[in-house]
Amino acid sequence: MSEKRKQDIQRIKELESINLARDEIRDLVVQTKMEVEKDNEQLAQQNNQEMKKYSIKSIDIVGAIGAGKTAIIEKIVEALSAKYRILVICGDITTTVDADRIKQHNAETIQINTGRECSLNAYHIHQIIKNKDLNDYDLLFVENVGNLICPSDFTLGTDKRITVVSTTEGEWVIEKHPMLFKMSHVAVINKVDLAERLGTDIQKMIHDAKDINPDIEVITTSAKTGENIDKLIEILNL
Amino acid sequence: MSEKRKQDIQRIKELESINLARDEIRDLVVQTKMEVEKDNEQLAQQNNQEMKKYSIKSIDIVGAIGAGKTAIIEKIVEALSAKYRILVICGDITTTVDADRIKQHNAETIQINTGRECSLNAYHIHQIIKNKDLNDYDLLFVENVGNLICPSDFTLGTDKRITVVSTTEGEWVIEKHPMLFKMSHVAVINKVDLAERLGTDIQKMIHDAKDINPDIEVITTSAKTGENIDKLIEILNL
Repeated sequence: MSEKRKQDIQRIKELESINLARDEIRDLVVQTKMEVEKDNEQLAQQNNQEMKKYSIKSIDIVGAIGAGKTAIIEKIVEALSAKYRILVICGDITTTVDADRIKQHNAETIQINTGRECSLNAYHIHQIIKNKDLNDYDLLFVENVGNLICPSDFTLGTDKRITVVSTTEGEWVIEKHPMLFKMSHVAVINKVDLAERLGTDIQKMIHDAKDINPDIEVITTSAKTGENIDKLIEILNL
Repeated sequence: MSEKRKQDIQRIKELESINLARDEIRDLVVQTKMEVEKDNEQLAQQNNQEMKKYSIKSIDIVGAIGAGKTAIIEKIVEALSAKYRILVICGDITTTVDADRIKQHNAETIQINTGRECSLNAYHIHQIIKNKDLNDYDLLFVENVGNLICPSDFTLGTDKRITVVSTTEGEWVIEKHPMLFKMSHVAVINKVDLAERLGTDIQKMIHDAKDINPDIEVITTSAKTGENIDKLIEILNL
């Protein structure tokens, strides 16, 4: 292996964990991460302008696996498919399970399989919108990869971000993911129908969300029973 | 900004998403990822040898947020703290909630806050075991960052890996994370006490785990009621 290649590999190893970076390289690592985010941010803005040009409203939904992202999108699409022409982009590392579920409710769906990447980024969305005729849609939903950590590194260019947590994830789930709630417009606390049985302290969750981001809208829902889905649609101005 | 630095940044940008890598750099990206994993693997083996030298049994636990990792460790520690001197390492991006919970059951705990990293790796564990007197422990548990994607990139050097999913995460959760179940010794399907109410198809989950990894042990538990925790301890030879 050439010396150059060894150096490249060493550098990238250090990026895997900033704690492991040598002092003399740490600045570069930090600056690079900032550059990557700036680039993503620019592309996200471009995505947003493109969608605005065609009057498409856009919302992305973040949450852990099983929080109820797909179920919430299903309920919303069911309620709104007569009013809007809807496109739903679903991110997952593998399978087309979510897109297949949503497709049944009269929305066009696209599944992105990220392989090992734990979040969608603005490039994924860019690839799709540049290959679609945006005249055909009024409303875009993006369901991110089921993960509460990685998506906080990347905006996608949507108008609003919803973060969904569920009462089954425990009352610490919001406190443990401050970055994500800082960048979200709406916090959905789903599966309220189970809260009593589980003894989950919903008040603490609401308080944590507001504490992290005073501007965030917090709503409790049950995608299963449909509770408050109409209210969520109202909050989203749809 | 110098040309060199620009190039460095460009290279690292491409690493953020292998799909975005230019053709001429793709090989390097792939090779680097493999090198990183090889390095991690070597260090993991070193960790394992070090622990074996002191006859320490070691187990790491992976699962999404709220799957019940902490609750399961609490129950196991409660049952075994008279028999073993236990060290528990907890990974999270922020907070010391989990370590604080486990500490109350007579185990020494260490919290690692990873900041933005979505998984522990062998280096994290290495840092801890090299700074501890390993004569003081018989059993090590590592609770990974709540995430089902990133931990499949890194082994830690433990004897066994348990992956915990819960019935509230939906019956697709195992099918969606094949890499993780391939590398796990035990699959725990937790919160079985809620399965009926949720209508979760546990048989599908068991089938998926065995389909992905015929050697995996699958067990259904409820950390809340304590159901099958004794059986889990038995499977782990503890």
